[in-house]
Formats: sequence, structure tokens, C-alpha cells
Amino acid sequence: MRVHNFSAGPAQLPLPVLERAASELTDWRSSGMSVLEVSHRGKDFTACAADAEATIRRLTGASDDYAVLFLAGGATGQFSAIPGNLTERGDTAAFLNTGQWSAKAIKEAQRQGVDAVVVADEADSSYTTTPDAGSFTVPEGARYLYYCANETIGGVAMPYVPTAEAAGVPIVADVSSMYLSRPVDVDAFGVIFGGAQKNLGPAGMDISLIRKDLLGRARADVPAIWDWKVMAEADSMLNTPPTFSIYLLGLILHWIEDSGGLAAMAERNDAKAQRLYDAIDTSDFYSNPVEKRSRSAMNIPFTLADPSLDTAFLAGAEDAGLTNLKGHRSVGGMRASLYNAMTDDGVSALIDYMAEFERTRA
Amino acid sequence: MRVHNFSAGPAQLPLPVLERAASELTDWRSSGMSVLEVSHRGKDFTACAADAEATIRRLTGASDDYAVLFLAGGATGQFSAIPGNLTERGDTAAFLNTGQWSAKAIKEAQRQGVDAVVVADEADSSYTTTPDAGSFTVPEGARYLYYCANETIGGVAMPYVPTAEAAGVPIVADVSSMYLSRPVDVDAFGVIFGGAQKNLGPAGMDISLIRKDLLGRARADVPAIWDWKVMAEADSMLNTPPTFSIYLLGLILHWIEDSGGLAAMAERNDAKAQRLYDAIDTSDFYSNPVEKRSRSAMNIPFTLADPSLDTAFLAGAEDAGLTNLKGHRSVGGMRASLYNAMTDDGVSALIDYMAEFERTRA
Repeated sequence: MRVHNFSAGPAQLPLPVLERAASELTDWRSSGMSVLEVSHRGKDFTACAADAEATIRRLTGASDDYAVLFLAGGATGQFSAIPGNLTERGDTAAFLNTGQWSAKAIKEAQRQGVDAVVVADEADSSYTTTPDAGSFTVPEGARYLYYCANETIGGVAMPYVPTAEAAGVPIVADVSSMYLSRPVDVDAFGVIFGGAQKNLGPAGMDISLIRKDLLGRARADVPAIWDWKVMAEADSMLNTPPTFSIYLLGLILHWIEDSGGLAAMAERNDAKAQRLYDAIDTSDFYSNPVEKRSRSAMNIPFTLADPSLDTAFLAGAEDAGLTNLKGHRSVGGMRASLYNAMTDDGVSALIDYMAEFERTRA
Repeated sequence: MRVHNFSAGPAQLPLPVLERAASELTDWRSSGMSVLEVSHRGKDFTACAADAEATIRRLTGASDDYAVLFLAGGATGQFSAIPGNLTERGDTAAFLNTGQWSAKAIKEAQRQGVDAVVVADEADSSYTTTPDAGSFTVPEGARYLYYCANETIGGVAMPYVPTAEAAGVPIVADVSSMYLSRPVDVDAFGVIFGGAQKNLGPAGMDISLIRKDLLGRARADVPAIWDWKVMAEADSMLNTPPTFSIYLLGLILHWIEDSGGLAAMAERNDAKAQRLYDAIDTSDFYSNPVEKRSRSAMNIPFTLADPSLDTAFLAGAEDAGLTNLKGHRSVGGMRASLYNAMTDDGVSALIDYMAEFERTRA
């Protein structure tokens, strides 16, 4: 029996997608082969990859001014690749620090020799806030402005795109844990990137949308498989790409499209999140520390007033078929991730369980 | 209906493994979740990854002196990571050039600032040979001796490990297209690495066996996800690893073990290859250009005496359920890849088809 899986990633995937993948895992498109077994340069697979790219473009509205790349190594790989593609050693780039994923990206940029200027840092609020619009500026000569649009661990989302603050510098955004969960104005960004393993499929692959004028600026020694220009020219197939990840991504993209696209996703995701936040906010038993305007619709951490009940809460949740609710090891408490594939029923079951637990234990 | 798939990679996988994966793709180990959906830090998945590592150790005999790493980006990623982990810019390393995959690794090492000294180059034979034992030496100060143990495109295999020639320098071997196809003396190597997508699972992941005294020598700016020491300390989970690839690798490793291990694989692989080479060598219609002592048991390129028949050969093969026999785009002709999962029946069907084609067309 399937459970309601609140994992932050790898995360719950749409059941119809998994059933389809299972049904054709030994014989894909009547080829007599699994999609795992076909050459990435064969016509069936190149059509599959091209369809995934085209569907991303339809869903996001990304124009031909943007390259769509499928890159190995997930978002953390791109933490290294972004400086390698956009700077020379010693160049400056600007960063917002809104939590642990921002911090990791900053550290990796520094390892790549970037002079990383943190123009806003939410340490004072223990990373439960985002910087106010207009409260920061990008230093002269910065090659880009970087931020994490949704902090998976803290449950903090940037409520706006800092276009005015960037003042014409390319904006680079890590959207891993909110990828294709709502409409996006691609033209506002230089680079949109993120790992697939939250909303979009298996772990191990990054999907990057890159404004084409940013191609061709890479350092001479950026790893070949992360040289954006080379990969754009090779349709992401300089080497053997993660073919199964691209295949499953395609199935999930069609599921999103068939479910109404990004506007429908946003409406459903906002409704799911609002119901859970309401349940938390109307209770003295549960609480969420994030300022309301910066709350994530995807990752919702919450704590119990009495942390000694955490273990009982999690055990009871498991028994009720509600899994992976334990908070990140660095934070404690609970975290419910409500990605695209989390059903309304799953959220209802969680809220019902929380109310019942509070009733019997409070 | 399943076909006999001679693809060079991604390549045919054992049918029982695919059937098992399909059967549990929506519910893994009665968890109510797909293996694609579980947290990489949960106890089920960490046990899965630990089991894959332990099985590799049992199959290869790799001792605790070696780290076993699962790394994103495949072998091509390691072409960048190896210099990053074993050299500073300007250091020297020695290379054998036995074909296109050697050449790619040399080029990438040069991009990483390595003074790449090619100590043997088989250009004179158009890369149909391997260097004689004792015919090359490693220059003083070289950080490692690199070679490709099996050239997938040329169908050329190094018939020996150049231990004497390395003279104590660590040997680094790309074994992508022969990984776990026969017993290996791990202790002879500093680094054994390769992509999984030939013998061992989905595309996009590298498996590296690294002698532990080589950890901790990385450049300050090697990408974090390829810093071998960091990844060894994190059990390959600094970031979210390619979890489905590790899962499927585990199933395949158990299939190898249950099939008798590496000695049994070698016996069967040698027998399969010998039958196909015999069919080629006893015919004037087909030919293979590789010198006999350097022939690969995994990748067997062959040409027709009359290349104008290539298209008919391939079309007839497809009709007979023999797929992906077209040679590499840079070489032409045909290529049959006979990895672990290629059955005896598949090889027999190919040989029968070749004989019938020759009889009717010669």
C-alpha cells in the first residue's frame, strides 16, 4: 500500500508516472529494450530528450534566448559550475544568504576563487526571514547576483525576484525545491537551475535554463561536462547523459501539463500549504518559526511545544502511513514537504493526524 | 518481445534485474514508496548503498585499503576529477594513448593544467594495437600512469596491467566498458574507475575504487562533489547521490554474484567473444582490424568486405531482433558489444544471422 511521503527529496512522485515507468521498464515503446538500455544517440532517446526540453519550454515559456541543459551532479555540481562558467578567479559575485543552501553555494563559489560578497544575510533572524526589497545593492563589477529561491531546510522562500536590486546584473537562482511548482518569469533570470529530485524525478541530475548570452564565458578549465556552451552545442550529450532521469523527467513534465500546467500547480500547492499553515497557526501545540511573507509553500518545518513528544509524534505518523516527517538533522522537529506530487488527501491526512495527536497528548 | 541488444552503452541489462525493479517500482521493500522516492539519508537507502559497496568488495576483493565511491557525472566527470585529486597545475602525469577514450582523458587532463606526457601512442596502427610490455617508461616526477583498459570504440583491450612500467607510480585505469567482467587485481591500481552504463546499470554514475593513501591530495578548488576524501568521509553522500543508479547497481551486483562471480563472468564472456571472433576470422566476408592479443572481449567492431551492404545488414539484423549493431559514428561498420548481460543465445543468434547474410549476399 502506498503511503503519504513527506520527504524533502528524493520525494514523492506522481503515482501514474511510476506505474507507467514500471509497465514499460522491460520494453519501452515496443523497442524490446528498457529505456535504461537504449543508446543515448539513438533516435528514440534523442526524441525523448527533445520532448522533455520542449515540454519545459511550453510549461515555463522559456524562449529560444535560453538554453535548456540537463547536467549531471545535481544542484551541488552547479554550485561549482556556476563560478566556472561566469567568472574568472578573483572576480566578484553577490550573494543573498537566506539559509543552508545559500551558504553551501557561497562556500563553493569561494573554493572556486570567487570574491563572494554577501549583500544580505538573515543570520539575525536565524534564517527565518528574507531580505526586504530595496535593502541591498549589488557591488560594482559583480558578475552575477545569486540567491536560493526556496530554502529546503529552513522552509523559507524569497517572496520576490530581486530584479531592481540586481540593476542589470544576471540573476542566478537555485530553484531546486520549488522547480515548476508555480509560473516563473524566465526572462527575469540569467540562470535558473536546480536538482530534479524534489518535483521532477530521480536524484543526480540538474536542469538549468541559461540565457544564451551567458554561454561562452567559461574558464578554460571548467570540467567539460559542465561547460555550458559545449553542453548546449551537444544537446546535453557531450558524454552519456543520465538517460533514465531525462526519461522520467519527461513523464513528470507531461503529468504537470496534463494537470493544468504551472498555474494549476501553484493554485493547488498554495491551497495545500495554506491548510497546513492554518492548522499550525491555530494551534498552541504546533508552531512554525518563519515570518509569514517568507514562508515556503513546498517545505514546512514545524515544532511541537513539547519536544519530548517528537518521537511519539513520528512513530504515530508512520503507523498512520505518513512518512519522512522528521525534520532536517540540523534543525530537529518536523518538516512536511508538499511538492507537486503530494496529494490533497495526503495533506488532509496529516492535518487530521496532527489534530488527533494534539487532542490525545496535549 | 525482448530483443538482443548489442548497444555499447547504455546497454542490455539482465532481464531478471529489470523485472525485479519493475515489480517494486511503486512499493520498495513494503515501504509504500518507490526507491526513487525515499530519502538518501533514511535507513533503508543507506543500507542499500552499503550493501552495494559490500558486494563490490566481495566481487573484486577490494580491501579496506580502498575507498569505494559512487560519483555523479560518469567516467567523463572523472576525467576532470582525477587531475583535480592527484595533481597541482603544472604537475606531470603519464598516459597511454590507445584510442578515443584515452585521447579524451588526455585532453581533459590538459584542460586541468596537467603536463600530460604520452608515453605510448598507437597512432601508427590506427589504434588497433596496444603498447608492448616494457616498451615505455614513466617520466620522473609523474603523479600517475593513466590508461584505458578497454577502448569501447576501437574494441581494443590492454592485455596486461603495466605494473613494471609504472615503477611504483599509482596506476589509474578507466575500466568503464569492462567493469566487473572478469577478476581484477585491485591492489595493482591506485584508482580503478568507470561509468556504470555498460555492465553495471543506468547512465550518469561513476564507480571509483581509490587507494586510500591517494585521498587528501586534492587541489583546493576541485568541485566538492568530486573531492574524493570528502566523498569517502561522507559515504558518497555529501549531496544527494544518484539513488536509483545505486539501487540498480546493487541488483546487478547480486545478479553477478548469484551467477558465479567474476571468474564465471570471465569464462562466459571469453567464450561468447571467442565464438564471434571465430565467426569473423573464418570468413572473408567479415573482418576485425584489431591485433589478436589486444582484442576486447566486450566490444567487437567488424566490417563487411563490401560496405555498400552495411545498410541491408543492419536492417536485416533489426528484423531479426538484433539491435544497435551499427558501428560508432567515427568508425563506421558494425560493433557488437557483449557485456555481462548479453546472453549466449544472443551471440548465437548474431552468428547465425551473419552466416545467413553472407550466404545470401556474398
